[in-house]
Amino acid sequence: MNLIIDVGNTRVKVAVFELDTIKEVFVFDKAEILSEVKKIISNFSITSSIVSSVAHFTEEERQEIAELLNPIFLDSTTNVPFKNNYKTPKTLGVDRIALASAAVNKYPNKNVLVIDAGTCITYDFITKQGEYLGGAISPGIQMRYKALHEFTAKLPLLEQSKLESFIGVDTNTSIHSGVINGVSNEIDGIIKQYQKKYRDLTVVLTGGDTYFLSKQLKSVIFAHPNFVLEGLHTILIHNLAND
Amino acid sequence: MNLIIDVGNTRVKVAVFELDTIKEVFVFDKAEILSEVKKIISNFSITSSIVSSVAHFTEEERQEIAELLNPIFLDSTTNVPFKNNYKTPKTLGVDRIALASAAVNKYPNKNVLVIDAGTCITYDFITKQGEYLGGAISPGIQMRYKALHEFTAKLPLLEQSKLESFIGVDTNTSIHSGVINGVSNEIDGIIKQYQKKYRDLTVVLTGGDTYFLSKQLKSVIFAHPNFVLEGLHTILIHNLAND
Repeated sequence: MNLIIDVGNTRVKVAVFELDTIKEVFVFDKAEILSEVKKIISNFSITSSIVSSVAHFTEEERQEIAELLNPIFLDSTTNVPFKNNYKTPKTLGVDRIALASAAVNKYPNKNVLVIDAGTCITYDFITKQGEYLGGAISPGIQMRYKALHEFTAKLPLLEQSKLESFIGVDTNTSIHSGVINGVSNEIDGIIKQYQKKYRDLTVVLTGGDTYFLSKQLKSVIFAHPNFVLEGLHTILIHNLAND
Repeated sequence: MNLIIDVGNTRVKVAVFELDTIKEVFVFDKAEILSEVKKIISNFSITSSIVSSVAHFTEEERQEIAELLNPIFLDSTTNVPFKNNYKTPKTLGVDRIALASAAVNKYPNKNVLVIDAGTCITYDFITKQGEYLGGAISPGIQMRYKALHEFTAKLPLLEQSKLESFIGVDTNTSIHSGVINGVSNEIDGIIKQYQKKYRDLTVVLTGGDTYFLSKQLKSVIFAHPNFVLEGLHTILIHNLAND
Protein backbone atom coordinates (compact mmCIF):
# COMPACT_ATOMS: atom_id res chain seq x y z
CA MET A 1 0.00 0.00 0.00
CA ASN A 2 1.10 3.58 -0.66
CA LEU A 3 0.93 6.54 1.68
CA ILE A 4 0.12 10.06 0.43
CA ILE A 5 0.74 12.98 2.78
CA ASP A 6 -0.60 16.41 1.84
CA VAL A 7 0.54 19.06 4.33
CA GLY A 8 -1.41 22.30 4.26
CA ASN A 9 -0.88 25.47 6.25
CA THR A 10 -2.70 24.14 9.30
CA ARG A 11 -4.12 20.72 8.38
CA VAL A 12 -2.61 17.49 7.11
CA LYS A 13 -4.49 15.08 4.84
CA VAL A 14 -3.16 11.54 4.60
CA ALA A 15 -4.47 8.87 2.24
CA VAL A 16 -3.71 5.16 2.14
CA PHE A 17 -3.92 3.82 -1.42
CA GLU A 18 -4.32 0.16 -2.36
CA LEU A 19 -3.62 -0.10 -6.07
CA ASP A 20 -5.47 2.88 -7.61
CA THR A 21 -8.05 3.25 -4.88
CA ILE A 22 -8.17 5.33 -1.74
CA LYS A 23 -8.61 2.90 1.18
CA GLU A 24 -8.74 5.50 3.93
CA VAL A 25 -8.27 9.27 4.44
CA PHE A 26 -7.07 10.85 7.68
CA VAL A 27 -7.20 14.55 8.51
CA PHE A 28 -5.43 16.08 11.51
CA ASP A 29 -3.59 19.16 12.77
CA LYS A 30 -0.11 19.81 11.41
CA ALA A 31 1.29 19.71 14.97
CA GLU A 32 0.31 16.04 15.26
CA ILE A 33 1.93 14.91 12.03
CA LEU A 34 4.63 12.64 13.48
CA SER A 35 2.45 10.83 16.03
CA GLU A 36 -0.40 10.38 13.53
CA VAL A 37 1.83 9.11 10.73
CA LYS A 38 3.44 6.63 13.15
CA LYS A 39 -0.02 5.32 14.06
CA ILE A 40 -0.98 4.94 10.40
CA ILE A 41 2.17 3.07 9.38
CA SER A 42 1.71 0.70 12.32
CA ASN A 43 -1.77 -0.18 10.97
CA PHE A 44 -1.07 -0.42 7.24
CA SER A 45 1.69 -2.15 5.34
CA ILE A 46 3.16 0.88 3.53
CA THR A 47 5.74 0.26 0.79
CA SER A 48 6.07 3.70 -0.82
CA SER A 49 5.13 7.25 0.03
CA ILE A 50 5.10 10.85 -1.15
CA VAL A 51 4.90 14.09 0.83
CA SER A 52 3.56 17.35 -0.57
CA SER A 53 3.90 20.43 1.56
CA VAL A 54 2.52 23.90 0.94
CA ALA A 55 3.56 24.82 4.46
CA HIS A 56 7.20 24.58 5.40
CA PHE A 57 8.55 21.81 7.54
CA THR A 58 11.30 22.41 10.04
CA GLU A 59 14.50 20.58 9.06
CA GLU A 60 13.94 18.34 12.10
CA GLU A 61 10.40 17.34 11.05
CA ARG A 62 11.57 16.63 7.53
CA GLN A 63 14.39 14.49 8.89
CA GLU A 64 12.07 12.49 11.14
CA ILE A 65 9.61 11.86 8.30
CA ALA A 66 12.49 10.83 6.04
CA GLU A 67 13.62 8.31 8.67
CA LEU A 68 10.09 6.94 9.13
CA LEU A 69 9.11 6.59 5.48
CA ASN A 70 11.93 7.55 3.11
CA PRO A 71 9.29 9.28 0.93
CA ILE A 72 9.50 11.36 -2.22
CA PHE A 73 9.32 15.02 -1.17
CA LEU A 74 7.42 16.68 -4.02
CA ASP A 75 8.97 19.86 -5.39
CA SER A 76 9.47 21.53 -8.77
CA THR A 77 12.31 19.11 -9.62
CA THR A 78 10.19 15.94 -9.16
CA ASN A 79 9.34 13.99 -12.32
CA VAL A 80 5.70 14.50 -13.28
CA PRO A 81 3.54 12.80 -15.93
CA PHE A 82 2.73 16.02 -17.84
CA LYS A 83 4.61 18.65 -19.80
CA ASN A 84 4.79 21.84 -17.77
CA ASN A 85 4.44 24.86 -20.06
CA TYR A 86 4.05 27.29 -17.14
CA LYS A 87 6.39 30.23 -17.75
CA THR A 88 7.72 30.07 -14.20
CA PRO A 89 7.54 26.32 -13.40
CA LYS A 90 9.33 26.77 -10.07
CA THR A 91 6.49 28.95 -8.80
CA LEU A 92 3.77 26.43 -9.71
CA GLY A 93 2.29 25.31 -6.36
CA VAL A 94 2.57 21.61 -5.44
CA ASP A 95 -1.25 21.37 -5.28
CA ARG A 96 -1.54 22.53 -8.87
CA ILE A 97 1.23 20.05 -9.90
CA ALA A 98 -0.80 17.29 -8.24
CA LEU A 99 -4.05 18.36 -9.93
CA ALA A 100 -2.44 18.40 -13.38
CA SER A 101 -1.00 14.92 -12.73
CA ALA A 102 -4.41 13.57 -11.70
CA ALA A 103 -5.94 15.11 -14.83
CA VAL A 104 -3.58 13.37 -17.29
CA ASN A 105 -3.94 10.09 -15.39
CA LYS A 106 -7.75 10.10 -15.06
CA TYR A 107 -8.59 11.75 -18.38
CA PRO A 108 -5.75 10.94 -20.83
CA ASN A 109 -6.11 12.48 -24.31
CA LYS A 110 -8.73 14.95 -23.07
CA ASN A 111 -8.68 18.69 -22.58
CA VAL A 112 -9.18 19.02 -18.84
CA LEU A 113 -10.04 22.06 -16.74
CA VAL A 114 -9.55 21.40 -13.02
CA ILE A 115 -11.29 23.79 -10.62
CA ASP A 116 -10.12 23.52 -7.02
CA ALA A 117 -12.53 25.39 -4.73
CA GLY A 118 -10.81 25.84 -1.40
CA THR A 119 -9.16 28.83 0.32
CA CYS A 120 -8.55 30.09 -3.21
CA ILE A 121 -10.33 28.93 -6.35
CA THR A 122 -7.64 27.71 -8.76
CA TYR A 123 -8.26 26.96 -12.41
CA ASP A 124 -5.77 24.65 -14.15
CA PHE A 125 -5.91 23.66 -17.78
CA ILE A 126 -4.22 20.63 -19.36
CA THR A 127 -4.49 19.99 -23.10
CA LYS A 128 -5.29 16.61 -24.63
CA GLN A 129 -1.58 16.45 -25.53
CA GLY A 130 -0.81 16.39 -21.81
CA GLU A 131 0.55 19.94 -21.68
CA TYR A 132 -0.14 22.08 -18.65
CA LEU A 133 -0.82 25.65 -19.85
CA GLY A 134 -1.76 27.51 -16.66
CA GLY A 135 -5.01 29.00 -15.45
CA ALA A 136 -6.16 31.39 -12.78
CA ILE A 137 -6.36 32.05 -9.04
CA SER A 138 -9.32 33.84 -7.48
CA PRO A 139 -10.58 34.24 -3.90
CA GLY A 140 -12.46 31.23 -2.47
CA ILE A 141 -15.94 31.37 -0.93
CA GLN A 142 -14.84 31.80 2.71
CA MET A 143 -12.24 34.35 1.64
CA ARG A 144 -14.91 36.48 -0.07
CA TYR A 145 -17.11 36.51 3.05
CA LYS A 146 -14.08 37.41 5.14
CA ALA A 147 -12.94 40.18 2.77
CA LEU A 148 -16.41 41.81 2.70
CA HIS A 149 -16.35 41.93 6.49
CA GLU A 150 -12.72 42.87 7.15
CA PHE A 151 -12.23 45.38 4.33
CA THR A 152 -15.46 47.37 4.91
CA ALA A 153 -16.73 49.24 7.95
CA LYS A 154 -20.24 47.87 8.21
CA LEU A 155 -20.75 44.46 6.57
CA PRO A 156 -21.14 41.47 8.92
CA LEU A 157 -19.14 38.22 8.73
CA LEU A 158 -21.51 35.51 7.53
CA GLU A 159 -21.33 31.73 7.33
CA GLN A 160 -21.64 30.19 3.88
CA SER A 161 -25.29 29.52 3.09
CA LYS A 162 -27.50 28.21 0.29
CA LEU A 163 -29.31 30.78 -1.83
CA GLU A 164 -33.07 31.13 -2.03
CA SER A 165 -32.92 33.74 -4.78
CA PHE A 166 -30.16 35.55 -6.66
CA ILE A 167 -31.85 38.83 -5.65
CA GLY A 168 -30.91 39.52 -2.04
CA VAL A 169 -33.66 41.29 -0.10
CA ASP A 170 -31.63 42.43 2.92
CA THR A 171 -27.96 42.86 3.85
CA ASN A 172 -27.36 39.18 4.63
CA THR A 173 -29.07 37.71 1.58
CA SER A 174 -27.36 40.38 -0.58
CA ILE A 175 -23.97 39.20 0.70
CA HIS A 176 -24.86 35.52 0.21
CA SER A 177 -25.95 36.30 -3.33
CA GLY A 178 -22.82 38.32 -4.07
CA VAL A 179 -20.55 35.54 -2.84
CA ILE A 180 -22.34 32.29 -3.79
CA ASN A 181 -24.13 33.43 -6.93
CA GLY A 182 -21.04 35.48 -7.84
CA VAL A 183 -18.70 32.48 -7.56
CA SER A 184 -21.17 30.26 -9.46
CA ASN A 185 -21.41 32.74 -12.34
CA GLU A 186 -17.63 33.19 -12.35
CA ILE A 187 -17.07 29.42 -12.61
CA ASP A 188 -19.84 28.79 -15.17
CA GLY A 189 -18.57 31.69 -17.29
CA ILE A 190 -14.96 30.55 -17.20
CA ILE A 191 -15.97 26.98 -18.12
CA LYS A 192 -17.76 28.43 -21.17
CA GLN A 193 -14.64 30.38 -22.19
CA TYR A 194 -12.58 27.17 -22.18
CA GLN A 195 -15.34 25.22 -23.97
CA LYS A 196 -15.42 27.84 -26.71
CA LYS A 197 -11.65 27.61 -27.24
CA TYR A 198 -11.13 23.86 -26.60
CA ARG A 199 -13.63 21.27 -27.80
CA ASP A 200 -14.47 18.16 -25.76
CA LEU A 201 -13.60 19.82 -22.51
CA THR A 202 -13.74 17.72 -19.36
CA VAL A 203 -14.29 19.76 -16.19
CA VAL A 204 -13.26 18.47 -12.77
CA LEU A 205 -14.40 20.17 -9.57
CA THR A 206 -12.42 19.47 -6.41
CA GLY A 207 -11.54 20.99 -3.03
CA GLY A 208 -13.45 21.62 0.17
CA ASP A 209 -16.42 23.33 -1.53
CA THR A 210 -16.93 20.58 -4.14
CA TYR A 211 -20.33 19.33 -3.00
CA PHE A 212 -21.68 22.74 -2.07
CA LEU A 213 -20.72 24.23 -5.43
CA SER A 214 -21.64 21.27 -7.62
CA LYS A 215 -25.29 21.91 -6.66
CA GLN A 216 -25.03 25.61 -7.61
CA LEU A 217 -23.36 25.25 -11.02
CA LYS A 218 -25.18 25.00 -14.34
CA SER A 219 -22.20 23.37 -16.10
CA VAL A 220 -21.65 19.63 -16.27
CA ILE A 221 -18.70 18.77 -14.05
CA PHE A 222 -17.10 15.71 -12.50
CA ALA A 223 -16.85 16.01 -8.73
CA HIS A 224 -13.58 14.55 -7.37
CA PRO A 225 -13.14 15.91 -3.84
CA ASN A 226 -9.80 14.07 -3.41
CA PHE A 227 -8.21 15.02 -6.74
CA VAL A 228 -5.05 16.41 -5.10
CA LEU A 229 -4.49 13.15 -3.20
CA GLU A 230 -5.14 11.16 -6.38
CA GLY A 231 -2.67 13.33 -8.28
CA LEU A 232 0.00 12.85 -5.61
CA HIS A 233 -0.54 9.10 -5.94
CA THR A 234 -0.16 9.41 -9.71
CA ILE A 235 3.17 11.22 -9.23
CA LEU A 236 4.35 8.54 -6.80
CA ILE A 237 3.47 5.71 -9.23
CA HIS A 238 5.11 7.65 -12.09
CA ASN A 239 8.36 7.94 -10.13
CA LEU A 240 8.32 4.30 -8.95
CA ALA A 241 7.84 3.15 -12.56
CA ASN A 242 10.72 5.36 -13.76
CA ASP A 243 13.11 4.21 -11.05
CA MET B 1 -27.33 75.73 -8.65
CA ASN B 2 -27.50 72.68 -6.40
CA LEU B 3 -24.70 71.18 -4.34
CA ILE B 4 -24.37 67.42 -3.86
CA ILE B 5 -21.98 66.16 -1.19
CA ASP B 6 -21.15 62.44 -1.07
CA VAL B 7 -18.97 61.62 1.95
CA GLY B 8 -17.15 58.29 1.80
CA ASN B 9 -14.94 56.63 4.39
CA THR B 10 -11.88 58.65 3.40
CA ARG B 11 -12.83 60.76 0.39
CA VAL B 12 -15.51 63.34 -0.32
CA LYS B 13 -17.04 63.87 -3.75
CA VAL B 14 -18.87 67.12 -4.36
CA ALA B 15 -20.85 67.98 -7.48
CA VAL B 16 -22.30 71.29 -8.58
CA PHE B 17 -25.46 70.79 -10.65
CA GLU B 18 -26.99 73.38 -12.96
CA LEU B 19 -30.48 72.11 -13.85
CA ASP B 20 -29.99 68.40 -14.56
CA THR B 21 -26.34 68.61 -15.52
CA ILE B 22 -23.16 68.22 -13.54
CA LYS B 23 -21.20 71.46 -13.93
CA GLU B 24 -18.19 70.46 -11.87
CA VAL B 25 -17.00 67.61 -9.62
CA PHE B 26 -14.54 68.05 -6.74
CA VAL B 27 -12.79 65.24 -4.87
CA PHE B 28 -10.85 65.76 -1.65
CA ASP B 29 -9.94 64.19 1.71
CA LYS B 30 -12.66 63.98 4.33
CA ALA B 31 -10.48 66.05 6.71
CA GLU B 32 -10.73 69.04 4.36
CA ILE B 33 -14.51 69.00 4.00
CA LEU B 34 -15.31 72.30 5.71
CA SER B 35 -12.63 74.39 4.04
CA GLU B 36 -13.31 72.88 0.61
CA VAL B 37 -17.08 73.32 0.84
CA LYS B 38 -16.58 76.94 1.91
CA LYS B 39 -14.41 77.53 -1.18
CA ILE B 40 -17.01 75.95 -3.46
CA ILE B 41 -19.95 77.95 -2.11
CA SER B 42 -17.98 81.15 -2.50
CA ASN B 43 -17.51 80.35 -6.20
CA PHE B 44 -20.99 79.07 -7.10
CA SER B 45 -24.41 80.44 -6.31
CA ILE B 46 -25.84 77.46 -4.42
CA THR B 47 -29.54 77.44 -3.59
CA SER B 48 -30.12 73.86 -2.35
CA SER B 49 -27.99 70.97 -1.20
CA ILE B 50 -27.99 67.37 -0.03
CA VAL B 51 -25.41 65.46 1.99
CA SER B 52 -24.98 61.68 1.85
CA SER B 53 -22.58 60.13 4.30
CA VAL B 54 -21.44 56.51 4.53
CA ALA B 55 -18.87 57.60 7.07
CA HIS B 56 -20.06 59.23 10.27
CA PHE B 57 -19.72 62.92 10.89
CA THR B 58 -18.94 64.28 14.31
CA GLU B 59 -21.87 66.28 15.69
CA GLU B 60 -19.70 69.40 15.34
CA GLU B 61 -19.01 68.79 11.63
CA ARG B 62 -22.69 68.14 11.00
CA GLN B 63 -23.58 71.34 12.83
CA GLU B 64 -21.08 73.41 10.84
CA ILE B 65 -22.31 72.01 7.53
CA ALA B 66 -25.91 72.63 8.59
CA GLU B 67 -25.02 76.29 9.32
CA LEU B 68 -23.20 76.69 5.99
CA LEU B 69 -25.77 75.06 3.72
CA ASN B 70 -28.90 73.95 5.58
CA PRO B 71 -28.86 70.80 3.41
CA ILE B 72 -30.98 67.65 3.40
CA PHE B 73 -29.05 64.96 5.28
CA LEU B 74 -29.96 61.74 3.45
CA ASP B 75 -31.01 58.83 5.65
CA SER B 76 -33.56 56.03 5.58
CA THR B 77 -36.39 58.48 6.50
CA THR B 78 -35.76 60.81 3.53
CA ASN B 79 -38.44 60.82 0.81
CA VAL B 80 -37.23 58.96 -2.28
CA PRO B 81 -38.74 58.64 -5.78
CA PHE B 82 -39.01 54.82 -5.69
CA LYS B 83 -40.85 52.19 -3.66
CA ASN B 84 -38.43 50.44 -1.34
CA ASN B 85 -39.30 46.73 -1.10
CA TYR B 86 -36.07 45.88 0.73
CA LYS B 87 -36.98 43.74 3.74
CA THR B 88 -34.79 45.84 6.04
CA PRO B 89 -35.09 49.33 4.49
CA LYS B 90 -33.16 50.94 7.36
CA THR B 91 -30.08 48.91 6.48
CA LEU B 92 -30.10 49.89 2.80
CA GLY B 93 -26.92 51.95 2.30
CA VAL B 94 -27.30 55.56 1.20
CA ASP B 95 -25.27 54.82 -1.96
CA ARG B 96 -27.75 52.15 -2.96
CA ILE B 97 -30.66 54.53 -2.20
CA ALA B 98 -29.02 57.09 -4.50
CA LEU B 99 -28.45 54.54 -7.28
CA ALA B 100 -32.07 53.39 -7.22
CA SER B 101 -33.19 57.03 -7.36
CA ALA B 102 -30.97 57.71 -10.36
CA ALA B 103 -32.34 54.60 -12.08
CA VAL B 104 -36.02 55.60 -11.83
CA ASN B 105 -35.18 59.16 -12.90
CA LYS B 106 -32.96 58.27 -15.88
CA TYR B 107 -34.80 55.14 -17.04
CA PRO B 108 -38.45 55.51 -15.98
CA ASN B 109 -40.72 52.54 -16.83
CA LYS B 110 -37.69 50.28 -17.41
CA ASN B 111 -36.33 47.32 -15.50
CA VAL B 112 -32.91 48.59 -14.41
CA LEU B 113 -29.94 46.71 -12.97
CA VAL B 114 -27.33 49.08 -11.51
CA ILE B 115 -23.85 47.65 -10.98
CA ASP B 116 -21.58 49.81 -8.85
CA ALA B 117 -17.99 48.60 -9.14
CA GLY B 118 -16.02 50.18 -6.32
CA THR B 119 -14.65 48.85 -3.01
CA CYS B 120 -17.51 46.35 -3.24
CA ILE B 121 -19.48 45.46 -6.34
CA THR B 122 -23.14 46.14 -5.57
CA TYR B 123 -26.01 44.97 -7.74
CA ASP B 124 -29.31 46.83 -7.38
CA PHE B 125 -32.47 46.00 -9.26
CA ILE B 126 -35.43 48.33 -9.82
CA THR B 127 -38.52 47.12 -11.67
CA LYS B 128 -40.28 49.09 -14.42
CA GLN B 129 -42.96 49.84 -11.79
CA GLY B 130 -40.31 51.75 -9.83
CA GLU B 131 -39.95 49.14 -7.09
CA TYR B 132 -36.55 48.50 -5.58
CA LEU B 133 -36.23 44.75 -4.95
CA GLY B 134 -32.65 44.36 -3.72
CA GLY B 135 -29.60 42.73 -5.27
CA ALA B 136 -26.18 41.59 -4.16
CA ILE B 137 -22.85 42.66 -2.67
CA SER B 138 -19.58 41.02 -3.72
CA PRO B 139 -15.92 41.98 -3.27
CA GLY B 140 -14.59 44.66 -5.64
CA ILE B 141 -11.52 44.31 -7.86
CA GLN B 142 -9.01 45.87 -5.44
CA MET B 143 -10.52 43.91 -2.55
CA ARG B 144 -9.97 40.62 -4.40
CA TYR B 145 -6.30 41.40 -5.05
CA LYS B 146 -5.89 42.39 -1.41
CA ALA B 147 -7.65 39.26 -0.09
CA LEU B 148 -5.50 36.91 -2.20
CA HIS B 149 -2.41 38.52 -0.73
CA GLU B 150 -3.47 39.01 2.89
CA PHE B 151 -5.34 35.73 3.39
CA THR B 152 -2.68 33.43 1.88
CA ALA B 153 0.96 32.86 2.77
CA LYS B 154 2.60 33.21 -0.63
CA LEU B 155 0.59 35.23 -3.15
CA PRO B 156 1.89 38.73 -3.97
CA LEU B 157 -0.14 41.96 -3.87
CA LEU B 158 -0.65 43.10 -7.46
CA GLU B 159 -1.91 46.26 -9.08
CA GLN B 160 -4.99 45.93 -11.28
CA SER B 161 -3.95 45.16 -14.85
CA LYS B 162 -5.46 44.44 -18.27
CA LEU B 163 -5.56 40.80 -19.36
CA GLU B 164 -3.73 39.40 -22.36
CA SER B 165 -5.34 35.98 -22.04
CA PHE B 166 -7.79 34.34 -19.65
CA ILE B 167 -5.22 31.55 -19.19
CA GLY B 168 -2.57 32.84 -16.80
CA VAL B 169 0.90 31.48 -17.53
CA ASP B 170 2.64 32.41 -14.27
CA THR B 171 1.62 33.44 -10.76
CA ASN B 172 0.97 37.09 -11.63
CA THR B 173 -1.04 36.49 -14.80
CA SER B 174 -2.96 33.72 -12.98
CA ILE B 175 -3.97 36.20 -10.28
CA HIS B 176 -4.90 38.89 -12.85
CA SER B 177 -7.02 36.34 -14.69
CA GLY B 178 -8.67 35.12 -11.48
CA VAL B 179 -9.57 38.65 -10.43
CA ILE B 180 -10.32 40.51 -13.69
CA ASN B 181 -11.67 37.64 -15.78
CA GLY B 182 -13.43 36.32 -12.68
CA VAL B 183 -15.21 39.63 -12.02
CA SER B 184 -16.10 40.00 -15.72
CA ASN B 185 -17.66 36.52 -15.84
CA GLU B 186 -19.48 37.16 -12.56
CA ILE B 187 -20.99 40.40 -13.89
CA ASP B 188 -21.83 39.05 -17.37
CA GLY B 189 -23.43 35.96 -15.79
CA ILE B 190 -25.50 37.94 -13.32
CA ILE B 191 -26.70 40.30 -16.08
CA LYS B 192 -27.89 37.20 -18.00
CA GLN B 193 -29.79 35.93 -14.95
CA TYR B 194 -31.69 39.22 -14.71
CA GLN B 195 -32.26 39.34 -18.49
CA LYS B 196 -33.76 35.86 -18.37
CA LYS B 197 -36.17 36.84 -15.60
CA TYR B 198 -36.93 40.45 -16.62
CA ARG B 199 -37.33 41.43 -20.26
CA ASP B 200 -36.10 44.76 -21.61
CA LEU B 201 -33.44 45.05 -18.97
CA THR B 202 -31.36 48.23 -18.89
CA VAL B 203 -27.94 47.76 -17.27
CA VAL B 204 -26.03 50.68 -15.76
CA LEU B 205 -22.37 50.36 -14.76
CA THR B 206 -21.00 52.92 -12.33
CA GLY B 207 -18.27 53.38 -9.70
CA GLY B 208 -14.50 53.74 -9.80
CA ASP B 209 -13.93 50.74 -12.08
CA THR B 210 -16.53 51.77 -14.68
CA TYR B 211 -14.21 52.44 -17.59
CA PHE B 212 -11.82 49.59 -16.84
CA LEU B 213 -14.66 47.06 -16.60
CA SER B 214 -16.78 48.35 -19.47
CA LYS B 215 -13.96 47.27 -21.82
CA GLN B 216 -13.86 43.76 -20.29
CA LEU B 217 -17.59 42.98 -20.33
CA LYS B 218 -19.46 41.20 -23.11
CA SER B 219 -22.84 42.60 -22.06
CA VAL B 220 -24.27 45.86 -23.36
CA ILE B 221 -24.20 48.38 -20.54
CA PHE B 222 -24.59 52.10 -20.05
CA ALA B 223 -21.55 53.61 -18.33
CA HIS B 224 -22.51 56.35 -15.82
CA PRO B 225 -19.48 56.90 -13.58
CA ASN B 226 -21.33 59.56 -11.53
CA PHE B 227 -24.61 57.70 -11.02
CA VAL B 228 -24.51 58.10 -7.22
CA LEU B 229 -24.12 61.89 -7.56
CA GLU B 230 -26.93 61.97 -10.13
CA GLY B 231 -29.13 59.93 -7.82
CA LEU B 232 -28.48 62.28 -4.91
CA HIS B 233 -29.46 65.18 -7.15
CA THR B 234 -32.67 63.31 -8.07
CA ILE B 235 -33.50 62.91 -4.37
CA LEU B 236 -32.83 66.59 -3.74
CA ILE B 237 -35.13 67.67 -6.59
CA HIS B 238 -37.78 65.18 -5.43
CA ASN B 239 -37.76 66.71 -1.94
CA LEU B 240 -37.75 70.32 -3.18
CA ALA B 241 -40.76 69.53 -5.41
CA ASN B 242 -42.61 67.95 -2.49
CA ASP B 243 -41.97 70.81 -0.10
